[in-house]
Formats: sequence, structure tokens, C-alpha cells
Amino acid sequence: MTLEEKLAQITGFWEKADGEAVAPLQGDFTHDLGLAEATRHGLGHLTRVYGTRPVDPVERARWLWAQQRSLVRDTRLGIPALVHEECLTGLTAWQAATFPTPLAWGASFDPGLVAEMGAAIGGSMRQLGVHQGLAPVLDVIRDPRWGRVDECIAEDPYVVGTLGTAYVRGLQSAGVHATLKHFAGYSASQAGRNFAPVRAGRREVEDVLLPPFEMALLDGGARSVMSSYAEIDGVPVAASPELLTGVLRERWGFEGPVVADYFGVAFLHLLHAVAADLGEAAGLALAAGVDIELPTGDAYLGPLAAAVRSGRVDEALVDRAVLRALEQKEALGLLDATFEDEPPTAVDLDSPEHRRIAARLAEESVVLLANDGTLPLRAPARIAVAGPNADRVAALFGCYSFLNHVLAHHPGVEVGIEIPTVVEALRSALPDAEVVTALGCAIDDDDRSGFAAATSAAANAEVAVLVVGDHAGLFGRGTVGEGCDRDDLELPGVQRELVEAVLETGTPVVLVLLTGRPYAIDWALGRCAAVVQAFFPGEEGAPAIAGVLSGRVNPSGRLPVSIPRSAGAQPYSYLHPPLGGDGDVTNLRSTPALPFGHGLSYTTFTHTGLQAPAQVATDAPVEVSVRVANTGERAGDDVVQLYARDVVGSVTRPVAQLIGYHRVHLEPGESVVVSFSAPPARLAFTDREMRRVVEPGELELWVGPSCAVRETEARTTLTGPVHRVDSGSDRWTAVSAR
Amino acid sequence: MTLEEKLAQITGFWEKADGEAVAPLQGDFTHDLGLAEATRHGLGHLTRVYGTRPVDPVERARWLWAQQRSLVRDTRLGIPALVHEECLTGLTAWQAATFPTPLAWGASFDPGLVAEMGAAIGGSMRQLGVHQGLAPVLDVIRDPRWGRVDECIAEDPYVVGTLGTAYVRGLQSAGVHATLKHFAGYSASQAGRNFAPVRAGRREVEDVLLPPFEMALLDGGARSVMSSYAEIDGVPVAASPELLTGVLRERWGFEGPVVADYFGVAFLHLLHAVAADLGEAAGLALAAGVDIELPTGDAYLGPLAAAVRSGRVDEALVDRAVLRALEQKEALGLLDATFEDEPPTAVDLDSPEHRRIAARLAEESVVLLANDGTLPLRAPARIAVAGPNADRVAALFGCYSFLNHVLAHHPGVEVGIEIPTVVEALRSALPDAEVVTALGCAIDDDDRSGFAAATSAAANAEVAVLVVGDHAGLFGRGTVGEGCDRDDLELPGVQRELVEAVLETGTPVVLVLLTGRPYAIDWALGRCAAVVQAFFPGEEGAPAIAGVLSGRVNPSGRLPVSIPRSAGAQPYSYLHPPLGGDGDVTNLRSTPALPFGHGLSYTTFTHTGLQAPAQVATDAPVEVSVRVANTGERAGDDVVQLYARDVVGSVTRPVAQLIGYHRVHLEPGESVVVSFSAPPARLAFTDREMRRVVEPGELELWVGPSCAVRETEARTTLTGPVHRVDSGSDRWTAVSAR
Repeated sequence: MTLEEKLAQITGFWEKADGEAVAPLQGDFTHDLGLAEATRHGLGHLTRVYGTRPVDPVERARWLWAQQRSLVRDTRLGIPALVHEECLTGLTAWQAATFPTPLAWGASFDPGLVAEMGAAIGGSMRQLGVHQGLAPVLDVIRDPRWGRVDECIAEDPYVVGTLGTAYVRGLQSAGVHATLKHFAGYSASQAGRNFAPVRAGRREVEDVLLPPFEMALLDGGARSVMSSYAEIDGVPVAASPELLTGVLRERWGFEGPVVADYFGVAFLHLLHAVAADLGEAAGLALAAGVDIELPTGDAYLGPLAAAVRSGRVDEALVDRAVLRALEQKEALGLLDATFEDEPPTAVDLDSPEHRRIAARLAEESVVLLANDGTLPLRAPARIAVAGPNADRVAALFGCYSFLNHVLAHHPGVEVGIEIPTVVEALRSALPDAEVVTALGCAIDDDDRSGFAAATSAAANAEVAVLVVGDHAGLFGRGTVGEGCDRDDLELPGVQRELVEAVLETGTPVVLVLLTGRPYAIDWALGRCAAVVQAFFPGEEGAPAIAGVLSGRVNPSGRLPVSIPRSAGAQPYSYLHPPLGGDGDVTNLRSTPALPFGHGLSYTTFTHTGLQAPAQVATDAPVEVSVRVANTGERAGDDVVQLYARDVVGSVTRPVAQLIGYHRVHLEPGESVVVSFSAPPARLAFTDREMRRVVEPGELELWVGPSCAVRETEARTTLTGPVHRVDSGSDRWTAVSAR
Repeated sequence: MTLEEKLAQITGFWEKADGEAVAPLQGDFTHDLGLAEATRHGLGHLTRVYGTRPVDPVERARWLWAQQRSLVRDTRLGIPALVHEECLTGLTAWQAATFPTPLAWGASFDPGLVAEMGAAIGGSMRQLGVHQGLAPVLDVIRDPRWGRVDECIAEDPYVVGTLGTAYVRGLQSAGVHATLKHFAGYSASQAGRNFAPVRAGRREVEDVLLPPFEMALLDGGARSVMSSYAEIDGVPVAASPELLTGVLRERWGFEGPVVADYFGVAFLHLLHAVAADLGEAAGLALAAGVDIELPTGDAYLGPLAAAVRSGRVDEALVDRAVLRALEQKEALGLLDATFEDEPPTAVDLDSPEHRRIAARLAEESVVLLANDGTLPLRAPARIAVAGPNADRVAALFGCYSFLNHVLAHHPGVEVGIEIPTVVEALRSALPDAEVVTALGCAIDDDDRSGFAAATSAAANAEVAVLVVGDHAGLFGRGTVGEGCDRDDLELPGVQRELVEAVLETGTPVVLVLLTGRPYAIDWALGRCAAVVQAFFPGEEGAPAIAGVLSGRVNPSGRLPVSIPRSAGAQPYSYLHPPLGGDGDVTNLRSTPALPFGHGLSYTTFTHTGLQAPAQVATDAPVEVSVRVANTGERAGDDVVQLYARDVVGSVTRPVAQLIGYHRVHLEPGESVVVSFSAPPARLAFTDREMRRVVEPGELELWVGPSCAVRETEARTTLTGPVHRVDSGSDRWTAVSAR
């Protein structure tokens, strides 16, 4: 292979025929070569097959097959491109199913269902000739001010790791490679500002930020990893051999390709200023272990070629990356592919099976935060519906979804599939009720002119349903999403004022939150009759919400993230050592408005009789069991949550840590015993010598309705020597119910 | 020495005869032995000689001499106690001078004057038999939400290091040992909550948090260091051999004793939970390098004795600590002291010399933030004065000052010395004006009943002076101070509303801020006629403020800390890499309301013709010069600020870094050339291999009225190999003016 042929294999082409707005700064440095020029020596990656315009998927597949055929026939090496696409909540294509947002996966605490979703997404991608998906996002939520919290699963690394691994297994079961992103640290940026420096020590990186990646690689077998834009303690990850080679390859044995986050190689020069030019940036990234530059070869084409020819970069580093790229293509069967066959002539990207999964995941993810008994609604004759998200399709989707993009760029476009809004779903769910709609305000401006109609409608109704929250968007075009950070955590615009105005009418208010982050809504919890947190619930989200309101669905979501007290109290995590919470040494309360794990039901559950052995060796699993009973009047799902506290450690240890969870369905009066077997890896942490260990000592264990409540508890003594836990150990808590 | 005699030498006794409220949690574990019992085997430290009650200093000195005589005569070894006392802004004693708060030292940018203050404080202490002062605080401000920002100097490590070193030199010139605190990390706690975990990487610790300590030890020769309460990345500093022995002793060669912050050893068990009991806590702290437990021997007496006797702790560790404690007493002459002499029979702790220094430092520290020309006041016939800090003596003092304590505990007490309030000083400064006072509101409640009187007074005046801000206090008893953190950065209580109500009258408002932290006052900058930031200016603070308002004093303070945008935008530091500031990748503005270094004058200064060599070797100082001219109508002081940016680094580098500063007095029309010689240590940072280096490459240099404005700039290329900078190198930028 010539140098140009090699570099072609480790760079991509971004087909932007639909002229969409792209990332900030891109115009300053990147050059669109045109596809013909870009593929002269072959092509590593091809992307944006589905763009942001409504394009018939079959038509697009035909275009794709043609490009691939041309690469096979018209380039010297005849290697097709690897096609990658965004797919976080579904393939980003017109008429493709859009599933709930990752926060909703977190709220479901249901890895099996997330795996089903991943398989459905992968199936759609595979049919259309897409080989790699740029998902899941395994960043652990560290600060709700960050706009990309929308794309994250939870503030607990184990929840992120288990659900992320489930997604990977599902996607890859369909033959599509997953990409773990963003490795690593991105979510811990200072003050929640996108790309801002991460002030984390090595122990926080090891114990909080890395575990989900380790799980999804070692347990999930993920085939690709994306390097993060972040810098951690001064070192940009895309230039960090310690993380990209030391941790990823030497410690975890990962052999697949690392792809750069879009423009991330060039950003080493342009934003981080650790490289004097694009050639130096290319050399740093390549040496660190970034194999493939995306979306285009701004640094890995011309600048890297020059650097290799001048001897500044060793060509052996290029060869290493090319080999990884070609090995991946080989694994995907691309080295033998001719594309002589025809693409599918008809596809269904939103089949009844997609719908079933989307509906079930939405239903499992709705979190009932507060309820004075108003929910479920008791056949009201008249309902007032208000709030800017009540009658908006885009309100159901996060930033990285096709529908959100397409609606942002082409408002009024035909979405191509059936997606009811909340108010439409409510009308269907309550056919006997008169539903009066007066939205009241927009998402994020200061126009209060609609308040009067909303309060008037509410005053004349038995109950008012207010559907408020976010509009997801990119780079300042939304209230949440990439580049849409906040320095307050109030509901955007005048939405709080609208809710308070409606509360003044005295009509009971059911507040429904369609948001991409948790907001500081303490003020609403005591005053609203009920509060429902739905995050972005996807194409079947509105019927799920209406189902919860009408009583068809018994809510079972649990908070995957704390409901914050205020922006000024951030960062906060439930996973904090004693001094990270309330105490006598500061006047400030840091306890969130509602804790991680919280969520109500229309029935009641009790957790009793937690059994744990008096002693367990440090190298053995901790086996515990607890009885969970449905003590209410109707069937429902509970999420049994097992927490632990390592009472004394050689370093400070969290006051609560989720070590196992299990979703269980119980009929009224039914009870089961749920058993957990937590392996040493679940209890391990990084000690003074930076070894991952389990130390002997006391362990408190409890089960309860959130991290904050010990409904039944037990105590175990870990005995024996300090046990060192290697990478590669299984780190899942085994769960069974009988 | 018996084990008990040894342990007695490494513990203290806290004389609390005046029954003051003490630290949180203390009642849970500490036991007051009574002085007779506590001194049976000797005594290491004795403290709180001056308590919080008004006690005649001579009387107290007599008591102290008596205790010392008793230790000499009645204990087997006959060793007197080392007496330590708080002295941050002056000896904490009745009738002693109280100087401006450290933020005001920072605003003065005047190390010479701070050294004079230190010498004056030391002289008072020495006279009264106090050997060691628990100051200065060298924590670099990282988050204005933290209550103890009140005790800190600046957000720039070099400003903290130079002024802190000046304080040490001054204090120790009087024969009193300084104590550097809090070593290290305390100021970087999560969300600014007191004692909360510090999420900092090693590079941030090395390049931001440690340098002031290194300067004050190596350049200032400080004799003692206090370990911090903080944990950094999971490791409590009081149990960190890496910091307390590795950095402090092995790298920096420190040989004096490390004292624990009060109760900090016990907190390893009680709060950090890294020790199962007090004995284990004692062993951890002793092994790490905490030599002396303060204030009492909760862990180092009984629990440590038991741990040594049972073999859990090696007695050699005790011996090491005892040796350091006795070496310090020897250096202080205590091993030969008999206390047969008599204490002073009359002292003057607030002499004209104290007053002169207090006045000059106050005058140099007042920062004029904004001025539409209203200041200086032009002989107004009628002035309205409002705001809760206008007529309050305690408003002039920070949390760690005797007067603040004594006034908090004994309101209405005779302060014993002459201290005018702002309104009193204003009356003196403007004898021809009618000054009408109507305070309007209290510091921190929601009572608006006084608004009407304040607005009415303002409406009938030519100008309204509003004196607002903080009340400093301990543990929730203030709006700033130890344990008084904030999750918003609005002025406390209804003070903003008061200012806005007065603004509504149309009368020009001069806003004076007596605060212990910078507040988010962006809203006031454009609407008030002038804004004056005075921090806590001390006993001569009111005349200094009145002098600025009347025009007697030409303001010359410069912001040692950014004026923040909001609490939700924290943490923020001017010393950030490119992505720590504004940019295209986030919608959020992080730029502060006013930048570090900002401050106006009644004259104008220009900075021109920055000269720098085209090339400098990496191991040589960077020599630059700039002409500063007073281009206005009256004499004044300018603070010439030299900033640098290392354009490309192997790790991310700050976009601006103060590398030298110089306060200069200029008559109207006068100009001087100020020369700076910045040694390699000023430009050095911690590279990928954790070495402190100067790297070759481009260096941008500029001088301007704040970090944000490049009034005159130059560019230098650093040449040669990477230069490694060892500890111990001089790290001060030499400055001269001609």
C-alpha cells in the first residue's frame, strides 16, 4: 500500500449533500474534497448516509451500494468503505423508529429490554448497509448542567455499565459494531460546560469514569471505541497514550480500532493547543492510539503524510492503525464484499416489533416523582392541558435523534411515521373526557401572553396537565443537547411561572417533565398534585405517559440521576464520601430534591428480611437475599435496589453505592425472594497504591426505595487479606428471584 | 522521656475559660481534661490565650506567665508550652489592631506593605508571649462559593505566594513562627462546600495549589505548616505521606513541625472514615507526617498511647514528631526559658504605627470597579447613606478576627479601641455635607420594612451611598466565613432589592461592597453610578473608603479574584486553558463580570512599548520592560501587570498567567520604565512525566489593566532543550522601575 492508500483507510468522508449545519469551528480548517477526490486512494469510513433531510431509506441505500461498488471497482485496492452512522436512540434515518433517550433506559433499570432495543436498531442498520454505530454513550453523569446529559444513562457507573453493555450486545448481535463513547472523562467537565477541562484525579477516573467502558468491552465485547474531546488534568485524551493504549489495550486487551470524535484530532491543535499544527496533532493522536480520524482526514491526510515523509512521525504508527482498520473491515466481511448484490428494495424501520419495544421501554421509564392520589386520573369530565411540550412531536426526542434534527432543520416536514403528541395520546387514553388545550408559553422565551388562556382553561377543569421541559438541539439551538449547557437548573424560559400561575387557580396540577436533564423542581414537588418525569420517551412516549396518567400503565421507572437542589450546588453525585454530603461543617445543604433510585407506583412494595452472611472472604462474592412484596391493590413492577457502604477504607469510600438491582413484576399480594451475588469486582476500588482491591472490614448492606432509605439492612464482615481484583473479572451482580 | 511525656509534647491544650462555642462535632468526641490534668506530663501547645471575651491583654499575659512557670517548675522535664494563637488579620486579642482581610492584601498587590503588617502583628504577639501564629492562609481561591474565601488572598498562585511569603517574612522577623495553612487543597472543594472532596488531578495540585506553600517555605523560611482537612481524590491530606513527607520534607527539605488543623486527626476517623478508631487515626496521621495534634490530644494522647503499647504504631514515629516539636521549642529559646521574668506591664497593641499600616493597606486595597464620573464626590450638600454595612463596626472584619468573634458572642461590648463605621468616616471626610442615614435592611433576612425610609432619604439627596455585603461568622452564623458557604452568589438577604429600590429613585447610587467573597454583581455595574469593592478593610477601612469617596484617596486596588458571573458558572478561574473559557463548543458564557486584575483610578495610566527579546533560552530569565505613564490630572498608584501565554505546550496551558506585577506611584505626567526579570520557575509547569519544566516554543507577553486586555504586547521564542526546574529555585520575578 502506498502512504496515500494507507491514510485513506484511516480517514473518513462526510457526505453532506443536504448542506446541514455542522460542528462549530469546522469552517475554519476542514476542506470538503468532494467524494470523488476523497476516494481516489480508497476510503476508510463513509458517513451521514441518512443526513437530516427526509430521504427515502431505500433510495439512500441504492446510493450507498453504488459508492461501495465504485470503491471496489475503481480503486487500486478495491476495498469498500466502512459505513458508520449515529444510532443512539435508533438509526438516524427518516421513517426509522426512535426509542427513548438513554436517561430513560437508566430509569427502566432493564438491561434485557435495552438489549432488545439494541438488536432492533442493529437490524435496521445492517439491512441498509451500515456497519458501525456511534453509540452507546457511556459517560457517567457528573453534572446536570452539561447539555449532553441528554445522551447519558445514569449517574451510577454500574447502571451505565450494565445498560450500556446490554445495548452493545444487542446492537452487535445484529452484526453492527458498537462504538463506546466518549472514552473518557467528557462528562466531568468543569461547571458542566461542554469541552471544559476535567478536574478529576486518577482515582475518580478509575473508579467512576472508566468502569462502564471496561464492562462494555470485557463483558460486552464492543468492537470500537471513540476517544473523547476532554482533557483530564491537562492532558487531552486524544493525545493520551496512558488511556488509549495503557488502559484500553494493555490493561483491557482491546484490539479494535479507536476512532476520533469528530474533528477531535484537529482540536488538539485548534482548541487544546498541545500541537503547533495539524501534522503534530496527527502525530500525537496516532502515537497515543487514535487509529481513525473522523469525520474527514483534516490531520491524517495531507498533514500526516507530510509529517511521515519528513520523518516527524514514524510510518510504523500509521501501519499499526491501518492494520486495525483493515482487521475490522475483515471482521465485517468487507474485504471480500463486491456489492454486486442489490440493496433491499423495501424496508420497515419502524415495524410492530420496533413499536412494541419502544412502547415497553417508554412505559418502564416513566418515573412518578410525587403523587397525592390524583394519579391515576379518575375519569375526569374535563382536563386542561398546557405547557409547551404538550403538543409537540420533537419534545419526545433527544439531541441525537433523526427526528429532532430533521424537525429542527426542516420544520413542518412530514415525519413519515405515526407519532402522537402527549395531548393526542391523552385524548385517546381518556375518550370520555373533554380535553381543552391552551399551551401557555414556548420552551425558552419570555412571552407570557398565553398564560391567561392556560389559567382560564385550568380554572374550568377538574385537573390540569402541564407538559413542560426541554427542546433538544445542537450548539445553542436547544435548551439541552450538545453545546446546550446551563448555568441554572430552572425550567427554561417562563415555564416555571406558567406552572405557578396554573397552581394559583387551585385546580390540581399534574406536572409532566419531558427533559434531557434533571431540573431543580423542588418547588413543584410539594405544590403539584403529581409530578411525572419522562425524560425523552421516544415515538411511543406519549401513549406511555397517557397510560400512566390514565392508569393503564402502573409507573415503575426509578431515577437514574438525582433531582438537583440547584445549579449552585453542583457538582453533586449520590456516590460521594461522607464529606460530599450534608454535615455540620458547612451550612449548605447538598442533599438533592429527590434521591437517585426514587420512583413511586400505584401499588406499594415492601422490602424485608435482608439476609447476608456474617462473614465473607474478600475474594468471594457477597450473597444476599431480600423479600419483596406487592402489598397494594394492583400489579406492578418494582426495581429492587441493593446498596452497600464500605464503612472504613484506606481511601474515602461512598456513603452509598448501588451494587445490584433487579426489576420484578408482582401481582397484588405476591412476594418473591430476590437473591444477589455481588462479585468482588462490584465492591472493589482503587487503593493508595492505585491497585483495584477489596479490603477486609465492615460492609453495610441495605435495600430500599432509593439510595437514601434503608428499609431493611444487614452487616457483613469482609475477612482475609486485601484481595486484588484484576481487569477481566466478571463485574456483574448475578440476580435471581424465586 | 516516658511515652506520656513524649505525647504531651506533641499535643495541645485549648483554654476555653470563656466558654466560647467551638467547632462542630467537637462535643461528640473530645474531652476537656482541665489544664492541671492536661499538663501533668508537660504540654506541647497552649492556645486561646485571648479567647473571645474582652480580657485585658496584660492580665492575660500574667496568667500565661504563671502557667509557663508552673510547667517549668512542676513538671519533671520543665519544658514550657509553645503558645500559638490565631493572627490572620492581627493578633486575636482585645484592643489589638485588626488589619484588612487577605483579599484586601491581594487587592493591594503590595508585598512590602504586607510584610510590614506581618512584622507589626508579630511584634504584638511576641510581647505577650505568643510564639506561633496560625497564619497565613495560602489556599488559592478556586471557587467563590466557599465561605473561607474570606481568609484567602487571591485566585492566582503567584499573588498568593508572594504576599503570603511577605506575611511570613514580616511575622517571623518579630520572632514569631508562621504556620502555612491549609496544606493543601482545601480551597478546591467540590461545589465550594466546606470540607467536601477535592476533585483535582496531580497536575492541578502541583501547578496551582502547591506553589504558594513552596514559595513561603523556600523563599520565606516559614517554620511550621498545618495539614488540611481536605481529601484530594480520595486521600485525606492528614493521612497522606506523599504530601506531608514526600513533597514537604523530601522535595522541599522542610524540617519543622507539621501541626494538624483543629480536630483534623480525629476527623480521619469521624468524618473521612479512613480509620476505624482514634488510635488508627493517630497512627495514620503520625506516619504521614502530622507531628502535633491540635488543639488537644484527642487521638495523640490515650488512643495513641494504647496503639504504641499494643505495637500497632511504632514508637519511632512518636520520637520523630517529638524531636521536631522540641527542635522548634529550642529554636524559640523555650528549652532555656524559666519565665522568672515578668510579663509586660503595659502594652500598646494598636499603636500609631499599627494604625499607619492598617490605613495604608486599606487605602491600597479598595478597588474601584465602576465609575461614571460620580466619584470622587463633588462636595454634595446632602448624601443619603443606606445598606446594612453602613454603620456596623463588625462589617469591617473577616471571620478570623478577634473583633468579629467578640462582637458575635458579646454584642454591644466595648471594642476598646477607636473604629469608625463607614457612615462616621464619611461624616468626617465630608464635614460640609448633610449625611442622612436610613439603613433599609439587615444583612440576611427578608425584612423590607426599612426600604421606604431608605428610598425616601435617597430621593431627597444628591447621591446615595449604599454599603452592602456580608457579615462574617463561623459555621452558619455569618454569610461568609468558615462553614458559611453559598450555593448562590447573589448579595445575601434582600440587599439587591434594596439597591434596586434606591436605583429606582433616580438618585445616583455609589455601591460599596464590604464582602468576604466576590459576588455576582453584574446587574449593578451598569446601573450604579459607581461601585467600590472593599472586601473587609479592617480598623482603618472606613476612613479609607470615605477617602476614596471624597477624593482624598486615589483608588489603586486591583481585583485579586474575578467578579463571578453566577454561582452556576462555578468553578471558574482566570488561569484556565483555552477550553476553560468561552468558545463555540458551548452556549454558556463563562467570562466573569469583571476580570482578575481590574481596578479603576481617578487618573489614567497607559502602558506602552513592551520590550522583550526575540529569543530566550529555556533556562534563562525572560527580561522585559514596559513604560507606564500617568496621563491624567492627579497622582496615583498603578499596579503594572505582566501576563504571559505559553502558546503550545505538551499539556494544556492557561490562556493568561500573571508572571510579574509591580505597584508604582506616579505624579501627573510622570512615566517610568518598569523592568521584569521572570525566572524559569515562573514559566515552568508540570509536564507529561510530572516533571516541572520550561519547554521551548512561543511565548506571548502583554501588559494591560487586567488579565483580559492586551494593552501592549510582545512575543518571545523560548529556545533550547526542555529545561527542568528544581524545587528551591528562586521563583520571584525581579522588578525594578526607573
